Amino acid sequence: MCKTHVLSVPSAKAPFEKIVIERRHLRPNDVLIDIKFSGVCHSDIHSAYGEWANGIFPMVPGHEIAGVVTAIGSEVTKFSVGDRVGVGCFVDSCGECEYCLSGEEQYCTKGVINTYNQLDYDGNPTYGGYSQKIVVKEGFVVHIPTALNLDVAAPLLCAGITTYSPLKHWNAGPGKKVAIVGMGGLGHLAIQFAHALGADVTVLSRSMNKKDEALELGADQYFATNDPATFAELAGHFDLILNTVSANLPVDAYLSLLRVDGTLVNVGAPAELDKYHVFSLIMGRRSIAGSLVGGIRETQEMLDFAAEHGIEPKIEIIRAEQIEEAYERVLRSDVRYRFVMDISTL
Amino acid sequence: MCKTHVLSVPSAKAPFEKIVIERRHLRPNDVLIDIKFSGVCHSDIHSAYGEWANGIFPMVPGHEIAGVVTAIGSEVTKFSVGDRVGVGCFVDSCGECEYCLSGEEQYCTKGVINTYNQLDYDGNPTYGGYSQKIVVKEGFVVHIPTALNLDVAAPLLCAGITTYSPLKHWNAGPGKKVAIVGMGGLGHLAIQFAHALGADVTVLSRSMNKKDEALELGADQYFATNDPATFAELAGHFDLILNTVSANLPVDAYLSLLRVDGTLVNVGAPAELDKYHVFSLIMGRRSIAGSLVGGIRETQEMLDFAAEHGIEPKIEIIRAEQIEEAYERVLRSDVRYRFVMDISTL
Repeated sequence: MCKTHVLSVPSAKAPFEKIVIERRHLRPNDVLIDIKFSGVCHSDIHSAYGEWANGIFPMVPGHEIAGVVTAIGSEVTKFSVGDRVGVGCFVDSCGECEYCLSGEEQYCTKGVINTYNQLDYDGNPTYGGYSQKIVVKEGFVVHIPTALNLDVAAPLLCAGITTYSPLKHWNAGPGKKVAIVGMGGLGHLAIQFAHALGADVTVLSRSMNKKDEALELGADQYFATNDPATFAELAGHFDLILNTVSANLPVDAYLSLLRVDGTLVNVGAPAELDKYHVFSLIMGRRSIAGSLVGGIRETQEMLDFAAEHGIEPKIEIIRAEQIEEAYERVLRSDVRYRFVMDISTL
Repeated sequence: MCKTHVLSVPSAKAPFEKIVIERRHLRPNDVLIDIKFSGVCHSDIHSAYGEWANGIFPMVPGHEIAGVVTAIGSEVTKFSVGDRVGVGCFVDSCGECEYCLSGEEQYCTKGVINTYNQLDYDGNPTYGGYSQKIVVKEGFVVHIPTALNLDVAAPLLCAGITTYSPLKHWNAGPGKKVAIVGMGGLGHLAIQFAHALGADVTVLSRSMNKKDEALELGADQYFATNDPATFAELAGHFDLILNTVSANLPVDAYLSLLRVDGTLVNVGAPAELDKYHVFSLIMGRRSIAGSLVGGIRETQEMLDFAAEHGIEPKIEIIRAEQIEEAYERVLRSDVRYRFVMDISTL
């Protein structure tokens, strides 16, 4: 076993504590990672606040992990000591179902094992990236390309793959008109991916506040959704709308912006039910869909694509003791665009 | 101009009257049709009752029209006098937009002209199939194959294409597990089409009442949705669910029956909003979609497919004076499975 310092939430909404936990002995196909940076995802807050069912406490959040391999198990083939690596939202899956076999482990029939706040297949709780060290099966670890610094690589492991995967799945590319709803941690990466994939990119944000930055990131157009004229002007315009906002949207209004066969894809989940009129779908053979992160193979592809195209998140580095302040700022959307914890301060 | 007897609703919910209207002079590309049979669609009732916006009265419903050509315009090339023909839900479209050019006139950018209850591009109201004669542009008329009697052909022009089109669009076929929700006018045709396309077909109906008929029509399985065990047993089972019911369903429960990448397609539209939790979509990259009838080319394809595979609706022929009784029976689901009016009784 290997002791490691972590930031832990002893119970729902309780203040973080710095404690020591043990990581498991290296199994033959495990790697031991010294974590350098850990991104702060909005879902960390939902989990730490006990807002999602079955919170397991004490909890160590963090599923945007970037670090360096410091030891490898006897059968590890993909990694060597010293490799720069990343770990995202999950750390195990059954490996046998059709989805695991096709590289989409996130939809594992047995159920994927999340990086934290879940019991693994042996019944032991998983602890995430607000931690100095982590032990992960090599099949769930990815290489971080040299062109990406570890601090900006971290948010790609969740926010990056969450937006890249649906853009690829729904064929964002040349000739396609893509809207990105919301310009936060996810949205500001989605703009860059959609642009690099060759799509015509429109940002739909509440106000005009972020227009200049959106255009710098690669957006072709920017509209404010607090202006009703936006919905009239863009009616029937988009092939794909990627909604990165976790609040309930007026679904019918957004559906009206889609062309025939267009799709509104959600990657954020509001707590309340969404509502829509079936006519909004029927009248243009439109779809509402959802997408969950991405598989390990696609996560590696996304990192390589980001490195090749110079895509990286805009981040604000925080020290470990600033985590609660960071949570509060995320909740009031006061971050451009992702907090990343410097684990050396833990 | 050509006078014709019709069944007309003078105002919303008023009793039908038999009156005489005039059909337009034949234009060069028009055909004049002696209507033999006209199907009774649930949407006729919504329209005649003024439940959908902008009812135009007097109204002559009917968009499941089967008859015989009795005259043709000077430039008509597709039809000859004596041809057995059908007319469905729309009778004109712009002919120039990308959707018209691709044969999906139902999604015409300018707006398709419905067979009744709409002003055409000249501003004249359209009158439907509860009528002895109708004049229609040849591009919106289809041939009825010899193997199909005119009475059973009529409901294919709306109920048939409404179910055939989405089954084709979402690739119902060998290896695919398809559920048909509801076994009414649309559902009992959907079962036959899905079966003939090679899919594994499951009927989801409220009770077990229609099981024997469903299996006769080609269903492989039949489950009652009033039994909660159905939803547990079929979790994650279907590639495609075609919902033919116009009532609000528990959307999340139906989404839970879909495999990863599965789609719930609606062809009926309830008056109230549907509700769902975004997680139901995210957790399996699932979609909710809608589909609107089908284009003229696909309608012809559907009729030819039906003729080839012996697919036809089960119908109950009514006389013109039974129309109100038929409406009442449709509203209490007391029809197996489609009323068709014998226009010779008008």
